[in-house]
Amino acid sequence: MKNVLVINAGSSSLKYQLIDMENADVIAKGLVERIGIDGSVIKHKPAGKDKVEIATPMKDHNDAMKQVIAALTDPVHGVVSDLSGICAVGHRIVHGGEKFSESVLITDEVIEAIKENIELAPLHNPANLMGIDACRALMPDVPMVGVFDTAFHANMPKKAFLYGIPYTAYTDYKVRRYGFHGTSHKYVSHRAAEMLGKDIKDLKIITCHLGNGSSVAAVNGGVSVDTSMGFTPLEGLVMGTRSGDLDAAIVPYLMDKMDMDVNQAINYLNKESGVWGISGVSSDFRDLWAEEEKGNERAKLALDVFNYRLKKFIGAYAAAMGGVDVITFAGGVGENDWDVRLHALEGLEFMGIKLDKEKNDGLRGEEAEISAADSKVKILVVPTDEEMTIAKDTYDICCK
Amino acid sequence: MKNVLVINAGSSSLKYQLIDMENADVIAKGLVERIGIDGSVIKHKPAGKDKVEIATPMKDHNDAMKQVIAALTDPVHGVVSDLSGICAVGHRIVHGGEKFSESVLITDEVIEAIKENIELAPLHNPANLMGIDACRALMPDVPMVGVFDTAFHANMPKKAFLYGIPYTAYTDYKVRRYGFHGTSHKYVSHRAAEMLGKDIKDLKIITCHLGNGSSVAAVNGGVSVDTSMGFTPLEGLVMGTRSGDLDAAIVPYLMDKMDMDVNQAINYLNKESGVWGISGVSSDFRDLWAEEEKGNERAKLALDVFNYRLKKFIGAYAAAMGGVDVITFAGGVGENDWDVRLHALEGLEFMGIKLDKEKNDGLRGEEAEISAADSKVKILVVPTDEEMTIAKDTYDICCK
Repeated sequence: MKNVLVINAGSSSLKYQLIDMENADVIAKGLVERIGIDGSVIKHKPAGKDKVEIATPMKDHNDAMKQVIAALTDPVHGVVSDLSGICAVGHRIVHGGEKFSESVLITDEVIEAIKENIELAPLHNPANLMGIDACRALMPDVPMVGVFDTAFHANMPKKAFLYGIPYTAYTDYKVRRYGFHGTSHKYVSHRAAEMLGKDIKDLKIITCHLGNGSSVAAVNGGVSVDTSMGFTPLEGLVMGTRSGDLDAAIVPYLMDKMDMDVNQAINYLNKESGVWGISGVSSDFRDLWAEEEKGNERAKLALDVFNYRLKKFIGAYAAAMGGVDVITFAGGVGENDWDVRLHALEGLEFMGIKLDKEKNDGLRGEEAEISAADSKVKILVVPTDEEMTIAKDTYDICCK
Repeated sequence: MKNVLVINAGSSSLKYQLIDMENADVIAKGLVERIGIDGSVIKHKPAGKDKVEIATPMKDHNDAMKQVIAALTDPVHGVVSDLSGICAVGHRIVHGGEKFSESVLITDEVIEAIKENIELAPLHNPANLMGIDACRALMPDVPMVGVFDTAFHANMPKKAFLYGIPYTAYTDYKVRRYGFHGTSHKYVSHRAAEMLGKDIKDLKIITCHLGNGSSVAAVNGGVSVDTSMGFTPLEGLVMGTRSGDLDAAIVPYLMDKMDMDVNQAINYLNKESGVWGISGVSSDFRDLWAEEEKGNERAKLALDVFNYRLKKFIGAYAAAMGGVDVITFAGGVGENDWDVRLHALEGLEFMGIKLDKEKNDGLRGEEAEISAADSKVKILVVPTDEEMTIAKDTYDICCK
């Protein structure tokens, strides 16, 4: 009994993977969409079999989990005969606040703590809780583990997590840098140390998780000492549709100019901004490069702004750690976009960062060292696998 | 006739200096306070004579300028017999928008352009205009020059001045990074090149202007290619009472929690934040160090946060320029606070930045090189003199 079910529940969606931890094999994965909305559907992919799509009404996450369990145990496209094949469920939880610096067995107290952090992640934590509740109801005897996006950053020093605002904003209202993508930054930094045959305790690593949401972390001796996302995932790098760093005074100025209320402004910064907003073309980097090649100035600008800000974060975090030994690239963009890697790193030779352009060029989605032989700093592409990390933590806590 | 009058008009204050440009001598300076408020007063200091304070009602900037002229030409504490001793007036203007990349003779068109930028600097530009109007009315034959805080940053590349928001925010509403303290960053970077006997075109300089308001600039070959203040002077470093960089999502969150409207929130970030907000003690660094010595944890935190963010900007700007040759410190804190210089630079040896601690220790307010003999990067303290720079620009345009 070495199977772990990984659940990533959104407000109207639920992603899952069933992973055989003996061999780290994904034996089935899928996605439920439009939960509680007309047109609910489950898209299920058993390993080695064809993908199936089943459209059926699902009014809530309970219904969705029922469909997931039905799909996993189905005589035709299922992969296990019954739930006894599942030793534990691992849940991705977005916001652990200051309470959780590592993955934990989900208890009533843990659920209470996740509830307490709803105000910090009003869209995500309630959805994560619905996933937990559904699993509790349908699989009452299977233990569950919460794996937090924030946990890996929980040991940042105060000088990195405090904002320049009244201290009471922190003590009374919990306003501080939390950081996200922690599961990825943790996995990638540890994997990078493994790839180099070094102890992570001896390394200063800058991990670039670049996807539709993007963040950079400074990992010193295995501890995340700073990261670019902050109180929310809005801060830091320019992203697909999120603005990243911004003069806060722009918010009221644009609210006034564009006649937006606060919620509209936040939506504007989260959904209409980023490389999509600059380019007016797409939030997908493949589209942007294609447009740039056709001479689209604004697509080029969006890429320039993205790469330039990433370069500055690399400089800032090297300074923060007093040096850098390793830079890693992960996420859809980081793993696949060799032009981003090229442009973000060019000009950093003065810091001992030297890309092997030939190795970098065309490299997509596979583990590789792409630094030049004489580069003081190792540059690695490390495809991230958040589900596997969640499964591993879950397995270690419940199934070992 | 080599005297230039420098005017820095605020909404209820007006600073002035009369400078003899033949010898670069300040022959009188002063400050009018509480213009349009009960208790108006002019504090006048002629060189070589005692300071005088004259309390007299001043309902507007015209009245204030009348008092300035009266003080300058007074038989007892004056320094010139009449206005013929003044060849031009130089005005500090906060916001030149995108129109001005250098100082200009003030014409009707220039005044119109300054008015157009009022929306970008609603507190400052109207005050600056009141100063201009008063001088026009009282000294109609004396030419005037506008020296803009933003001008030195006007040639930043787009990748540095664009935010990650829809491009229309830039084209329709002028939202971009402008940067401020330009007069200081320009003076200091040029002076640094002079001190080193180098051509500024060959230098990558990071200029740290640290005072109650603080900003850093990356000056590559004499051009400001990036700076930490942005659309407004709120962004960037933690300051005396300003927050600097912030997750924009904090604004609506705190508005909700603290029941603030937009204006209150902006006031909170500008007036109640910064090292003052973190420490709860003072916005003055001398107080903070004194409190830290007494064991005040929050005073120490405020200093830690300030120094750490400055260190990250130095790393970021070195990365932005592909290296750094010179780092300068100016402003009340930069010139006088050797502990800030020490802590902001420690750990940056990997970038060739090495402070001579003995030279740095105790150095206050004087030009000096404080890098170690084997430091690749030169570190300089360069007391800034914005008034002298304004006078010089004004003289060059009108009096040569």
